[in-house]
Amino acid sequence: VSRIAVDAMGGDRAPAEIVGGALDAFRAGHDVVLVGDMEAIGPHLDGARVEVVPATEVIHMDEDPGRAIRDKKDASISVASRLVASGEADGVVSAGSTGAAIAAAAFIIGRVRGITRPAIASLLPTDKVVLDSGANLTCRPDQLVEFAVMGAALATSHFGLDSPKVGLLNIGEEPGKGRELEKAAFDMLSTSPGIHFVGNVEGHDIASSRADVIVTDGFTGNVLLKTAEGTADMVQRILTGIVADDPAHQPALAQLAPAFGRFREILDPESIGGAQLLGVDGVVIIAHGSSSRTAVSNAVAMAVEGAEHKLPSKIKLGVAALAGV
Amino acid sequence: VSRIAVDAMGGDRAPAEIVGGALDAFRAGHDVVLVGDMEAIGPHLDGARVEVVPATEVIHMDEDPGRAIRDKKDASISVASRLVASGEADGVVSAGSTGAAIAAAAFIIGRVRGITRPAIASLLPTDKVVLDSGANLTCRPDQLVEFAVMGAALATSHFGLDSPKVGLLNIGEEPGKGRELEKAAFDMLSTSPGIHFVGNVEGHDIASSRADVIVTDGFTGNVLLKTAEGTADMVQRILTGIVADDPAHQPALAQLAPAFGRFREILDPESIGGAQLLGVDGVVIIAHGSSSRTAVSNAVAMAVEGAEHKLPSKIKLGVAALAGV
Repeated sequence: VSRIAVDAMGGDRAPAEIVGGALDAFRAGHDVVLVGDMEAIGPHLDGARVEVVPATEVIHMDEDPGRAIRDKKDASISVASRLVASGEADGVVSAGSTGAAIAAAAFIIGRVRGITRPAIASLLPTDKVVLDSGANLTCRPDQLVEFAVMGAALATSHFGLDSPKVGLLNIGEEPGKGRELEKAAFDMLSTSPGIHFVGNVEGHDIASSRADVIVTDGFTGNVLLKTAEGTADMVQRILTGIVADDPAHQPALAQLAPAFGRFREILDPESIGGAQLLGVDGVVIIAHGSSSRTAVSNAVAMAVEGAEHKLPSKIKLGVAALAGV
Repeated sequence: VSRIAVDAMGGDRAPAEIVGGALDAFRAGHDVVLVGDMEAIGPHLDGARVEVVPATEVIHMDEDPGRAIRDKKDASISVASRLVASGEADGVVSAGSTGAAIAAAAFIIGRVRGITRPAIASLLPTDKVVLDSGANLTCRPDQLVEFAVMGAALATSHFGLDSPKVGLLNIGEEPGKGRELEKAAFDMLSTSPGIHFVGNVEGHDIASSRADVIVTDGFTGNVLLKTAEGTADMVQRILTGIVADDPAHQPALAQLAPAFGRFREILDPESIGGAQLLGVDGVVIIAHGSSSRTAVSNAVAMAVEGAEHKLPSKIKLGVAALAGV
């Protein structure tokens, strides 16, 4: 059974919602260990016999992540990451500072050999992996090739695909489109062994079947994800404004209520739980800062899945294939 | 009355849908002139007495735009742009090669003094202006300031706003976020006279009230717009799949049909007609390559609006304010 360390102190709603989510995951049969301030965690444990590993410090959102990881040896995210590095846990979940989680993963858990830059991979409700979604604001073309390898490993383990289709996010489908970054990455991806490269894809292909994995730099990926989230919200609000606010529609809406419920569920970002930091030698789930207990519980399930599919090992195999080994 | 030159030969569905759209605009009272191959246009004119200015050449999607504009002096987009340059028309609408329309505008109509790079501004159904959405894949920080001036002019004339709020697209709200481009642009926008700068905005702010104008480089803007379009489509398809495909829902759906119709109308990209190329000394509407007659007709109406609000002059005033004149 995979064991997941949950950073109880990170996130806007820590520790209550984080501990609550960890408890839900524990009760669903997952092996979790909470990391943080014992006194803050205790009252939320609700009598459950979940192990707690103490950590006396917390890294706040406004701290410089690299410096904070160096200075605060006993920060909850650092202690949780050391549990993974030492093999006492298989994965870590944090809703705290993304930068701190990345720095802790890179310095404490360590990078996978051959990966120069760990990247954040996000799963879309359309069954796609998008990376990088924010760890590396600017990238070199060869790093986009690394993202392709890592994203394909995640798509293989999460969606059960044999040979996931990898697309390069661009402003047009034709080869030769884009900035210098995309032009060079297109050429490298076209000739990289072990990558099923399908060419350029565009923003609207997050909803098409052209690619299972979409690679881009972390700035563009972050904009893409937040735009998709914002648009999905907006469309639901427009629909509500037109359809639900008219009293004459109430009988029809009552009939459709279960269907609308499923619709909202599919689009709920919390159903996915978090993004994965790929390229480090352990499973790291970066949950949204505003995560509720539901999101945290789903993030733990995602970490368990990554650990059971040995995602870091799959990435090592992909890196080896890339090198022609 | 503003006179709009319509490039009858550009677009996937040219000339039939383009001529049809121009006819619809003409019948709605707009003064249009069609530009292109007389023999190709004639059969679609439906007996209407719309003026046609002949152009013997066409620029295709796969041609190098700059070279095509230099070599094909009698291309429809060039002839249409010359009508604007000479004052015989007040604006041009094209659904053909975007690159060719930009090159024709820059070389034939000419840039507004003080604007180094014309930019494509797109209107969202949430009443926002986003620019650049594809003309300049990489930008300097001072060009983002120019975009702010141009986008504010469009928001003023299109939405009737006194002092449109300008946001800088970024990966977080806090100052100091982003790439070197955003960091430098943030500082310049903060101190530029005449710009109501509200700071960084994120992808999801296309649906919030934080900014009326969102500025970014053309690569990121293009990804943002296509992601929003793709997501809106996807959400509608998910909804249809869940709600509309169940026969038991039919009575309720029949009651809600007019409301769903309005919902789809709001999200229909064709209702907007096209994007505007700002920073040249005339009104230039770039319609989508797949534009139907409805889209073309709406694009003509948008060109008329821009011409009547003297958008290029408004941009000149913004540039002057920026220079402290």
